[in-house]
Amino acid sequence: MSFAELWAELLPIGRDEQTGGYRRYSWTEPDAGCRVWFARTATDLGLRTDCDGNGNLWAWWGGPGSAAAPAVVTGSHLDSVPAGGAYDGPLGVVSAFAAISRLRGEGFRPARPIGVAAFTEEEGARFGVACLGSRLLAGAIDPAVARDLHDQDGVTLADAMSAAGRDPAMIGADEELLAGIAAYVELHIEQGSILDGLGAAVGVADGIWPHGRWRLDFSGRPDHAGTTRLPDRRDPMLPFAAAALAARDAAAENEALATFGKVIAEPGAANAISSAVHAWLDARAPEENILARLVHQIECVAADAAAQHGVGLAMQRESFTPPVTFDGALRDRMVDVLAAAGQQAPVLATGAGHDAGVLAARVPTGMLFVRNPTGVSHSPAEHAAEGDCEAGVAALAAVLADLAGRP
Amino acid sequence: MSFAELWAELLPIGRDEQTGGYRRYSWTEPDAGCRVWFARTATDLGLRTDCDGNGNLWAWWGGPGSAAAPAVVTGSHLDSVPAGGAYDGPLGVVSAFAAISRLRGEGFRPARPIGVAAFTEEEGARFGVACLGSRLLAGAIDPAVARDLHDQDGVTLADAMSAAGRDPAMIGADEELLAGIAAYVELHIEQGSILDGLGAAVGVADGIWPHGRWRLDFSGRPDHAGTTRLPDRRDPMLPFAAAALAARDAAAENEALATFGKVIAEPGAANAISSAVHAWLDARAPEENILARLVHQIECVAADAAAQHGVGLAMQRESFTPPVTFDGALRDRMVDVLAAAGQQAPVLATGAGHDAGVLAARVPTGMLFVRNPTGVSHSPAEHAAEGDCEAGVAALAAVLADLAGRP
Repeated sequence: MSFAELWAELLPIGRDEQTGGYRRYSWTEPDAGCRVWFARTATDLGLRTDCDGNGNLWAWWGGPGSAAAPAVVTGSHLDSVPAGGAYDGPLGVVSAFAAISRLRGEGFRPARPIGVAAFTEEEGARFGVACLGSRLLAGAIDPAVARDLHDQDGVTLADAMSAAGRDPAMIGADEELLAGIAAYVELHIEQGSILDGLGAAVGVADGIWPHGRWRLDFSGRPDHAGTTRLPDRRDPMLPFAAAALAARDAAAENEALATFGKVIAEPGAANAISSAVHAWLDARAPEENILARLVHQIECVAADAAAQHGVGLAMQRESFTPPVTFDGALRDRMVDVLAAAGQQAPVLATGAGHDAGVLAARVPTGMLFVRNPTGVSHSPAEHAAEGDCEAGVAALAAVLADLAGRP
Repeated sequence: MSFAELWAELLPIGRDEQTGGYRRYSWTEPDAGCRVWFARTATDLGLRTDCDGNGNLWAWWGGPGSAAAPAVVTGSHLDSVPAGGAYDGPLGVVSAFAAISRLRGEGFRPARPIGVAAFTEEEGARFGVACLGSRLLAGAIDPAVARDLHDQDGVTLADAMSAAGRDPAMIGADEELLAGIAAYVELHIEQGSILDGLGAAVGVADGIWPHGRWRLDFSGRPDHAGTTRLPDRRDPMLPFAAAALAARDAAAENEALATFGKVIAEPGAANAISSAVHAWLDARAPEENILARLVHQIECVAADAAAQHGVGLAMQRESFTPPVTFDGALRDRMVDVLAAAGQQAPVLATGAGHDAGVLAARVPTGMLFVRNPTGVSHSPAEHAAEGDCEAGVAALAAVLADLAGRP
């Protein structure tokens, strides 16, 4: 099956026809549609499919891997941010299947198993923790904590999994599965435009900036907007606004990134002072100590403004990923393999988190990036040229052939 | 029927048992429950009930009013803001029925009809225009514009009315009904604590500050929060934050009120820069020119900040109520009637809009306020003492007896 054929089959699932954006949240109807697509595609390719206890999907060519004969695994995720693009995640899964199809067509016979993984809830769009599926697999989050995570409607992960017919008691680290992975290579669209600036279709990742997500709960007092005197107000919108502006200033000062992309005002009436404002800070920096300083500066401004307005502030870290440096030997080997195949792949770092960043703590891990001409991601406008996607498939096939060609 | 009995029957409808807050949005299930309560209560009191073409409810003692024999009308509204209190609106309707019950018990025989009105969508919580039912009745909004108003889910007023079995083609000014109203007196909980400061259970309104609601649409570009460089960003959250802080500063400078209580960030993902931020400004001032200056100052800051961040800004006025001075003769007469009944009722102005403010343009109109010890309103904590509510019923009964006692 060609990349274009596989891509076209997945494209309509969970897509808003008006905006072209995707809402593929974990354990929802579009997610179920993606799971059916994964299983059908794998079966068509003669791969054995499996779902682990954490809801991550697996397809095996000559597998599954074991400690005695560990597999080379590739893949990514199928879920999306709200109104996300088509490429972030799915490109890696579709390219994995396309690369296997290509290797099959070339008569390649793997000396060790090759696996395709699709990790659940990578974006954290429903339950608030990014890379939830890979974190659970790798033992990087307590299963009891994960079960109690809840979406905006108060549905817990445990309830959502049960409703989808999965037993939430089964979630958690899977040491047997991890022991069967010799290497994990994730292909992903670049979420920036460094490759475009360098004129390269494909790149190799060096590492991931440390990054995290913090939730700020500003609690004020609901009052009538038309009658409550200014000195009597405890309006949580004001310290939130101060924090949002401080985030930009602190990011600039630290040559880092800080964003408030999600805010919920309660009760949310135009003629009522808010009782509470909940806001989420996404912060990333080249080094861990810079990230800590960045977040501290924002917290100080938020706390001062909250105190000034008689507003309470609770701030908690919802997720954190320390800096990741991918396996140096694997990175260099991928660069060599691609060079031998005639593809000059630059090495670059990224501010975006990935399942590969989580798995890097447990297994040798690397990443391939595919050129994103505008750099736009997490948006319906996210795009990669079909020729670049084909180059990505060729690169991934070459890497898999190299890694799985020898026992 | 006593005030306490009537109050207890209405209390559970549309109430969130966890927070104690109400969500009685127009043309929803709780709204239908309120309508059933109104009809049943009126019928129990021997009143003839009716629903006008705009969905406003009416109950008549010896009516309806006509141009030849115009009625004295009292009432308020039953809908709420999100997570609103129990008193804002319902106190006026319950007190109306309780006052009629009291007058009946005293053997009073009205020389002209007495009406009880419950106006639809006073808060504008669902369709965004405050006092929608009274505006339609008074011809203060184009019916075609009103039909196209839509709620957060895109449901139009026309669709919502049709779904509730009401013909949206019937909405608009009702000159016959207006001609049958000799005076309108609305009783309302005070949404401030002036009466408490004066030690009075009941007050008489002088006028309403000019006020309005403006919608600000900041349109940016959705991008990945973890990879988009600061200079490449067009983040609409930043000019919104600047506008929110400017609103407070400008309100203080002009001795007025300005509030952002509702904000929606799209797509609303913690790891994505927003594509758009929609925010609603509620602004009120003692005079119309001060209000214009206040809003202009906020708009200037918002526009400058939007331009600085490469963000688009569209600002439109969603509703506006010019200053209201209630009928002077009616105001003085109410003060005299209450004094004669032994109740010293101070005269006060308010920043809150009311159906009475809309109807004042068409019929002689007045208002009674009942003491609110904390001044808190639009909140589950809104409260009036039962004794003060009883004093309000006594005051309203005295006023109705005076106004309807003579032909």
